[in-house]
Amino acid sequence: MLRDLVRRCVESRWFQYGVLALIVFNAVILGADTIPAVRAALGQTLLAADRIIVYAFVGEIALRIYAYRLDYFKSGWNLFDFLIVFISLFAASSGLSALRAFRVLRVLRVIAVIPRMRVVVSALLDAIPGIASAGVVIVLILYVFAVIAANLYGAAHPALFGDVFAAMYTLFQVMTLEGWPDIAEAVRETHPRSWAFFVSFLLIGAFTLLNLFVAIVVRAVEEDAGPLFGGFVEEQRALREEVAALRREIAALARRER
Amino acid sequence: MLRDLVRRCVESRWFQYGVLALIVFNAVILGADTIPAVRAALGQTLLAADRIIVYAFVGEIALRIYAYRLDYFKSGWNLFDFLIVFISLFAASSGLSALRAFRVLRVLRVIAVIPRMRVVVSALLDAIPGIASAGVVIVLILYVFAVIAANLYGAAHPALFGDVFAAMYTLFQVMTLEGWPDIAEAVRETHPRSWAFFVSFLLIGAFTLLNLFVAIVVRAVEEDAGPLFGGFVEEQRALREEVAALRREIAALARRER
Amino acid sequence: MLRDLVRRCVESRWFQYGVLALIVFNAVILGADTIPAVRAALGQTLLAADRIIVYAFVGEIALRIYAYRLDYFKSGWNLFDFLIVFISLFAASSGLSALRAFRVLRVLRVIAVIPRMRVVVSALLDAIPGIASAGVVIVLILYVFAVIAANLYGAAHPALFGDVFAAMYTLFQVMTLEGWPDIAEAVRETHPRSWAFFVSFLLIGAFTLLNLFVAIVVRAVEEDAGPLFGGFVEEQRALREEVAALRREIAALARRER
Amino acid sequence: MLRDLVRRCVESRWFQYGVLALIVFNAVILGADTIPAVRAALGQTLLAADRIIVYAFVGEIALRIYAYRLDYFKSGWNLFDFLIVFISLFAASSGLSALRAFRVLRVLRVIAVIPRMRVVVSALLDAIPGIASAGVVIVLILYVFAVIAANLYGAAHPALFGDVFAAMYTLFQVMTLEGWPDIAEAVRETHPRSWAFFVSFLLIGAFTLLNLFVAIVVRAVEEDAGPLFGGFVEEQRALREEVAALRREIAALARRER
Repeated sequence: MLRDLVRRCVESRWFQYGVLALIVFNAVILGADTIPAVRAALGQTLLAADRIIVYAFVGEIALRIYAYRLDYFKSGWNLFDFLIVFISLFAASSGLSALRAFRVLRVLRVIAVIPRMRVVVSALLDAIPGIASAGVVIVLILYVFAVIAANLYGAAHPALFGDVFAAMYTLFQVMTLEGWPDIAEAVRETHPRSWAFFVSFLLIGAFTLLNLFVAIVVRAVEEDAGPLFGGFVEEQRALREEVAALRREIAALARRER
Repeated sequence: MLRDLVRRCVESRWFQYGVLALIVFNAVILGADTIPAVRAALGQTLLAADRIIVYAFVGEIALRIYAYRLDYFKSGWNLFDFLIVFISLFAASSGLSALRAFRVLRVLRVIAVIPRMRVVVSALLDAIPGIASAGVVIVLILYVFAVIAANLYGAAHPALFGDVFAAMYTLFQVMTLEGWPDIAEAVRETHPRSWAFFVSFLLIGAFTLLNLFVAIVVRAVEEDAGPLFGGFVEEQRALREEVAALRREIAALARRER
Repeated sequence: MLRDLVRRCVESRWFQYGVLALIVFNAVILGADTIPAVRAALGQTLLAADRIIVYAFVGEIALRIYAYRLDYFKSGWNLFDFLIVFISLFAASSGLSALRAFRVLRVLRVIAVIPRMRVVVSALLDAIPGIASAGVVIVLILYVFAVIAANLYGAAHPALFGDVFAAMYTLFQVMTLEGWPDIAEAVRETHPRSWAFFVSFLLIGAFTLLNLFVAIVVRAVEEDAGPLFGGFVEEQRALREEVAALRREIAALARRER
Repeated sequence: MLRDLVRRCVESRWFQYGVLALIVFNAVILGADTIPAVRAALGQTLLAADRIIVYAFVGEIALRIYAYRLDYFKSGWNLFDFLIVFISLFAASSGLSALRAFRVLRVLRVIAVIPRMRVVVSALLDAIPGIASAGVVIVLILYVFAVIAANLYGAAHPALFGDVFAAMYTLFQVMTLEGWPDIAEAVRETHPRSWAFFVSFLLIGAFTLLNLFVAIVVRAVEEDAGPLFGGFVEEQRALREEVAALRREIAALARRER
């Protein structure tokens, strides 16, 4: 049957390598297109090559869908792959140059195509729920401190703390520690006691981030140690059953003897 | 009885979601109130809404206290919740605009109201005793270096090291690494050998912070591995007892045989 | 006997608290002495109080030595305590104001006096051998890059890379990430390809520091898990011996039966 | 035989210490050579000493190769040692002063010569495969964001995002957090919504780096816990076999009895 032939084809090693080569080639084209000199000389060629690659990707995905029918969409990775190609297809044909910049998202297809990458990114995504609640706490701290800062220092420093959004951005910057002494210095000139605000924000923020980080480490260690330990406990239980069986046999022996 | 009805009411899901919705709505109001344009247009409305929400919170807590009587105050989370509402109640009615900024602390009620948040924040608080002594060591290092710096560089650099408080603030800034080369540069102009002071402070500070952090990780791993290990040791002990019982039975068998 | 009386005295709780109170009071005096206004008003009083406290410390240590004789010097903590008091005694009486700044090291006596502090600082010191070799590797990397930078960029940027010492200081600063883009920018103006130097130094430095840090974490986890595991393996061995003994008994039983 | 004598010689302790002393002396010479005053006074002497040391190193390696013949090249460390000496030999004799700067790489011989250093550096190298795939993900993120930034902000900010290389360097700088608010500020003046680009890049970058780091910690803990655990599982298996043997013996006993 034709479908079987197509399936064997899309599952073959040379097809996979071909797709991977196309993605890498596409990445190089999109990178080269950002270099003004290259763009001036080869702009039209690069654009044409990019367009051909997109159609090749569309064709490739069409083949896959033909091969697996609706089962294709059952895999999250396939869905991700499908969305990336189609979003970047529309981004490419869009008149807005801003949207065209996002054609490069197509490079992320390597994540869906190389199994090793899938594992790494899966591990990344798996870490998210574990830190979601800690993330909410950090956002909460940021919000509460931002509203306080906007109320206290907003009038005197509109560029830094003019409203809750500006204040959140400024405090996010303080949390990355980058340039915080300059910000604190500026505010201290109008509010001498504001050092307490900044020091407490830094300490609370650092402490919460630290704990979020520790939570990730502990979860990762456990996840890896868990199965090891689980198999171990199972072995232990099997041993115990062995001994219990032995006891029953000896008890039977003793009964017969009597 | 009325008390039972109230209790069932405050424990009902819709009541919990209602309170949560009010808190989130309150957070949005307090955030919106920091945006000058919104405040100019809706200032009075926001103020009125905020006041109504505070009274709703007071009513809610009164219902809870009626339902549980003095048992309400036995939970630390309830106490925290109670204090936040009443402190922010007085903050709101206070004439001082500085105090009014702290009304937003009411948003922290989400921590007391959502069980998942309680868990995260409990974990944060549990980590404190484990790092308290390391924290004391860090403060000690900061203090000792600050007094030395104030004595050595205070006269030449009053803005940075004028007294022990200024010196502690400056060294706290150095500990966050932010802008330390500028500070060290300024001091080196008057005291050429001060680089040794800064490098040793950075190394000792970084090393102590690192160990504080490691202490948190180790404690967290242990706390999680503890119960796992505990169940294991128990299983081990049960197995040993099984074997010991078997030995006794066989010994009894052997005695009878003789 | 008098010696026993003195020993009971220096070991009594009120004596310990008294010494601790004196140390804290001394710390406050030395901190207050850095505040110009306080020094102007109370300078002589603070100086006198500091001198009295030093003599009190000398007397205290004399009592301890009388009580324990040469055994006093067998404890590393006592030696540390003794050295701090006597160094700071000479620092105080010295005419050099620079040396007088180090009187504050006396505050470090709290580490020797409070048992909980001893534990924390011991843990800090225990971590040193584990990272010593990694530390040597980092110094080696710093030295090699510094010599290369001094040779390549020293002539063009004498302030940053004039000799190997200046270059090591500059690269230490780069390793803390603080202001590295400014340094890299300055060098790039004369040596366009120097970005490769900075990026490779940052990556190698970050990677080595990361591994040093991981080494500390792993050692700490092991040190804590070690005894737990050790007891466990022992239990396992005891169980095995129990089973082996059982086997021998059954074999004996079987032999008798034949 | 002469070869045996040479082998015993190069394996003797005094030979090892002699080589180590030469390497350290060479490091000091190369460092001293970067200090302008020292170079002016002793430049020729230092150069001569350096040349003599290189010939000594060449002689030493010739002795080793004579002693072990081709087996010498079977060790990776020997190969590393050999390459360093010969590369730095050509670097020294080269007319290019830029290449001469790399003579200092000879100092890295200490890693090959001191066994303790070999262990530390091996551990460093062992960590690389574990983070290679995460490293690829980070480079991928950097590339995708760089192409987007070059497209969106390249025209307005050629110095920062002029082409994909400039953009990658700028974003690498942002990833080290150093000076990112200044870069974001500059871009925000022309593209007000660019804050979303920087915040999302920082969050995604920090999250990926964090996970790369966690991966290293987990791998290190496992690698160390592995053998400990392995011995444990083995002991467990031995115990189970003991019990199984016991069961068989009792079964045999029971059969005989019947």
